[in-house]
Formats: sequence, structure tokens, C-alpha cells
Amino acid sequence: MPGTLLPIALTMGEPAGIGGEIALMAWLRRGPTDPCFYAVDSPRRLAALARRVGLPAPVVEIAAPEEAAAAFATALPVLPLASDPEPVLGRPDPVHAAAVIESIDRAVAAVQAGRAAAVVTNPIQKEALYAAGFPHAGHTEYLAALAGGGVHPIMMLACPELRVVPVTVHRSLRAAIEMVSAELIVTAGRITAAALKRDFGIPAPVLAVAGLNPHAGENGSLGSEEIEIIVPAIERLRAEGIDVRGPQPADTMFHARARARYDAALCMYHDQALIPLKTIDFDGGVNITLGLPFVRTSPDHGTAIDIAGTGKALPDSLIAALRLAAAIAVRRGHAAGPAPATIAAE
Amino acid sequence: MPGTLLPIALTMGEPAGIGGEIALMAWLRRGPTDPCFYAVDSPRRLAALARRVGLPAPVVEIAAPEEAAAAFATALPVLPLASDPEPVLGRPDPVHAAAVIESIDRAVAAVQAGRAAAVVTNPIQKEALYAAGFPHAGHTEYLAALAGGGVHPIMMLACPELRVVPVTVHRSLRAAIEMVSAELIVTAGRITAAALKRDFGIPAPVLAVAGLNPHAGENGSLGSEEIEIIVPAIERLRAEGIDVRGPQPADTMFHARARARYDAALCMYHDQALIPLKTIDFDGGVNITLGLPFVRTSPDHGTAIDIAGTGKALPDSLIAALRLAAAIAVRRGHAAGPAPATIAAE
Repeated sequence: MPGTLLPIALTMGEPAGIGGEIALMAWLRRGPTDPCFYAVDSPRRLAALARRVGLPAPVVEIAAPEEAAAAFATALPVLPLASDPEPVLGRPDPVHAAAVIESIDRAVAAVQAGRAAAVVTNPIQKEALYAAGFPHAGHTEYLAALAGGGVHPIMMLACPELRVVPVTVHRSLRAAIEMVSAELIVTAGRITAAALKRDFGIPAPVLAVAGLNPHAGENGSLGSEEIEIIVPAIERLRAEGIDVRGPQPADTMFHARARARYDAALCMYHDQALIPLKTIDFDGGVNITLGLPFVRTSPDHGTAIDIAGTGKALPDSLIAALRLAAAIAVRRGHAAGPAPATIAAE
Repeated sequence: MPGTLLPIALTMGEPAGIGGEIALMAWLRRGPTDPCFYAVDSPRRLAALARRVGLPAPVVEIAAPEEAAAAFATALPVLPLASDPEPVLGRPDPVHAAAVIESIDRAVAAVQAGRAAAVVTNPIQKEALYAAGFPHAGHTEYLAALAGGGVHPIMMLACPELRVVPVTVHRSLRAAIEMVSAELIVTAGRITAAALKRDFGIPAPVLAVAGLNPHAGENGSLGSEEIEIIVPAIERLRAEGIDVRGPQPADTMFHARARARYDAALCMYHDQALIPLKTIDFDGGVNITLGLPFVRTSPDHGTAIDIAGTGKALPDSLIAALRLAAAIAVRRGHAAGPAPATIAAE
């Protein structure tokens, strides 16, 4: 029921990157069942970008999210920023940090006010924000702060064939090993199981937990973390009634037959989760932040400043992020229509 | 030119596992261009196994490798062991260790004497050998010992779409991080590049080296091993004239477009190499030991004692191992025919 869904708010992201052109491309590739979205961005900048890249995507300025639905059929609706950045493509500049942050703030405010169904965020360049005094570790941490206290955001990456949740994320491999704890695994497992039910419509989700070591430690002969940390965490999750399998050897968890046996894989470190996901679906993966009070997805790639403005960027991941955000928003009741029956990743 | 190739010697492996039945299945599925092979095993045991599993594969006892070619068209040739093990399927027993070792010894002796083209090894159960006093860490280490001194065996795993070489193998993740060194990477890179030329017929091979940390360390902000160990190793390999790319973020190295840019990936730890390989091709991966003076491949799975004798085992990996061993042996000149022109992984 996309027609009855509130519009999705899409942030600008780093204006020197590919965010603008993939937003235009996603609008051009919209299908009849795709959700309506609007960009929180500069209409002037996006119109110039469409001309530069040669995208036949008209842009229309709207004054409120409520105007997006009517405008979407004929142009990309853009809710203008107070600041009007004039970025140089390929060159992130701290001078635009205020505009980047304003775009996030207004998208979140719209979803919090019940005027947008979900937030989809274009990638940001953290260094440019840090240089302007941005005090948060990253995008997700900032969204958690905007959501208020007591929030524990968990990153899930999903493509139609696989969902993965890395228990540790942007840490060196050495630091990730030190950081893995039963507490982290239990929290991630609990939030993931709840999200699979509420957001993905899976009544009795199955979680697979990867071992940290090769062969999941081979009964302790290849590392003790499985015995000391992962097995106790699995037992705690089971005691809460969650169906958890593992610890499983990571190398045999991700082929097609193995993937059919669970709904999400809990991984111990970044590459253990992202190698299989990006091997299977490099272009269409979506990042979903679980544990926030509002729906947030994002494309599973960076700002790609090296190809910004060339038209080489692919909008596949952004399109998948918009569709998944809409499906989750419908399940959470941000629309008048019934929740879809499908339980696929998107 | 399979007709002109010497036969391949296939070892028994753990007789309580699936080695026997996949050997019979591989013979049943032989095609006109497949290599001739013979099992170094018990003819009585294999004939009984064929009856039990319901495989219409006759077995014929041969007295020497030279008899294999003529026999192969109508039956699986078996060179009998001095010991005649009577294993219980599913129950490895140290009492059969002597037969397991004899099979390996005789296969290697045949290839060393120029009577076999290659050794293909069925999986063994190390614990059963250790319990009988086997002093080697594993299969590969034993083969290296049989090959004589000065041998540095390197494991490569290959499927038609990907070749990976883990620089560290059966170590806990913590120990693998400690073990990674420029010396190990340089040795693995040198042996891999030489093997890609000699054994795979690739005149100017390209190696991709994975980073250890997420995003290949992100210029040191996510770990220092790339800067301190991996980059210097890459520079040493380049100084030897080897075309090496990296360090590359491991999560973006293994999708189809990325794989097209290199001939083999050097990985820092077991799961970094085996997750992508087994995600892409769970059933057909082959283990090749580089750096030995003779050709040795093996299926990329274990003894699977839980399904031994049930007929559920798939011979795909063994068949791929036999084919790849034959292709390498032809390139090394263990046959009268010209080397094949293809440079694919099998």
C-alpha cells in the first residue's frame, strides 16, 4: 500500500559525494509499488547535478513533507535546507558540515513528528564533520543521540539472501577480539530477534551465531572464546525463549543451503559479517539500524567521492534501502494499509 | 589429453568416513575427458561399501599403477593395502592408523617414482592418527616430510570463480594475528605466484592481498598491521617482479567484479579466505598444496563420519580435486600431451 504510506525522508549526506545523483537515479527508477520519498537537500544543487550528470530527473521544491506525495509522480520532491551548500564534487569541506547535520536533524524531526515514515540516510564523510566540531563518533551514534537516551543501536546488513549483524563493528581485529563479550552478544541477539518479529514479520525467528575462531574453536583447541563467551551468551538468549543456533563455524554458514536455516547471522567482527554479505550482493545490500525508536536504513556504501558527478554510481543499494524502510514502516503501522505478507529481507 | 596422462593415486583417508563412497561416486560420474585414477585402499572394503550404499560401481584389484588405465573404463581400479582394514563406518579407530598412513605412503611413492601423475588425498581424522602415535601436525605436514627437507607447503583453495591462499591456517584468531608476518606473506606470495604460472598456466599472475583489519585498517585508524607488516611485504614481493595489489579491504574483494581483477587472493587468516570460497562454492572447492615437489590436491571437506555409508555425501569436491590435479600434472609435463590452453581454476 505505498499510496497510503507517509513519505520517506532522504538525507543529503556528504554533498561532495554521490548522494545527490543516486537520489535522482532512484527517483528515475521508481516503480509503481515503490515508496514515495523526498530529499532534504538543496533544490538548486540537485537540479544542477541532474544537468551535469545528464539525468532527466526534474526537481521540485516542497514546503512540507505532506506535499511530497502529490509531487513525486512528476519530479523528485526536495525540502530545502536553510543553508544552501555549493560543494565541489569530490572535495568534502567542513564548511558544509552544518548543512549535512541540518539535513539529518530535519529528516529525524519529520519522522518523530509523524510526518515521515522513515529516515533513509545518504553516506556522510566523517572527517569533514569532525573538522567542523561534530562531537559524535558517527552517523548512527548521532541518530541515537537525536532519539534520546537509553537507545542501543545495532547495525544489521541485509540483502534478499542474507541478514547479518556484526556484534563489533569499526574496531581493529585485535580490538574486536578484546571487545567481544557475552553482554554484547546477548544485547545484539535480543534486539535482532525483536526486530525480525516486528520489522520483518517473522513470527519465530532463528538466529545463527558465528564462532570467533576457525571451525568455531574446535572444542577449545583453536581458541577459547566460544567456550568462555559465546556458548554462555547463547544459553542466556535461549533462556529468554529465542531460537539460537551455534556457535557455528563461520566458513560454512553462508552458502545457500546454510543460509536457508536461519533468519539472521550474529557475527563477532566486521569482516566476518561483511565478507559474505558483499560477496553475495555487492550492489544491493542495505544497512538497517535496529534498536532506534524510528525506522532508519541507509545504502551499504560510502560517499564514493572519487566518482561523484560522473554518473558511474549505482543507485541499487539506495533503492533497496528505500524499499526496505517502507516495508518496515508499514509493519510498524506508519501507514493506513495492512502490513505486507512477505517476510523477505526487502 | 587424459589418455596419455599417468593415473592419479587416490588415498583411502579415514576409512570410517566418506572417502570410500565418494571415490566410488567419482568413478561412476567419470566423463570422457576425466582423468584415470586408482584408489590405494582395500578392494574388499570398497566392494562391500558399494553394495551397502547401492552404488553400481564394480571394483577391480590391480597389482601396479600401470594397470589402472586399462581397468578404469569398466571398474574402479584399487591397489590393495598390505593391511586390510575393517572399519566401522562413523567410528574412527586408531587401529586403522597404519592402513591410513600406508595408503598415503604408497600414493606418494608412486608419484615420486614417476608411476602416478599426482596424489589426491581423501580426508583423514587426525585424532585417530595421533592416538596411534602419528607424530605430524596434519596431512600436509606429513606430505612435506615425505617430500624431504626444505619444503614450505602453502594451502590454496580453489573453485572455478576464486583462488584463495590463507597465510595463517589452523590457529585461533588471536594467534593468527600474532603470527602474521611480512616473512609469511612474502613466502606465500612467492610460492603462489610461481604456482599460478607453472601449475595454472597464467603467464603474468596478479595477486590481491587482503588487509587484516576492517577497511584494511583505514590508514592506521583501525589497526596498524597493514602499515607495519602487509605494505612492507607487498613492497618486497613487487621488488621481485610480482604484480601485487593491496592491502585491500577484505569485504569488497570477493564479489564477482572484484574477483575478475586478480588471479589469487592472499588472506591473513583462515576464515577470511574460507568464508568467501565456501559462500561461493560450498560443494566444489578444492584444496591444493603449493610448494611440494609433487602434485597434491584434496577435497575441501572433512571425513563427514556422521553421514558415512548413507550415500548422502557429495563427490563434487573430490571430482574437482581429481580434475585439477590432472590439469596441473599435464602442465608440469607428467603426460605426453601438450598443456591445456585454458587457465581457469580447473
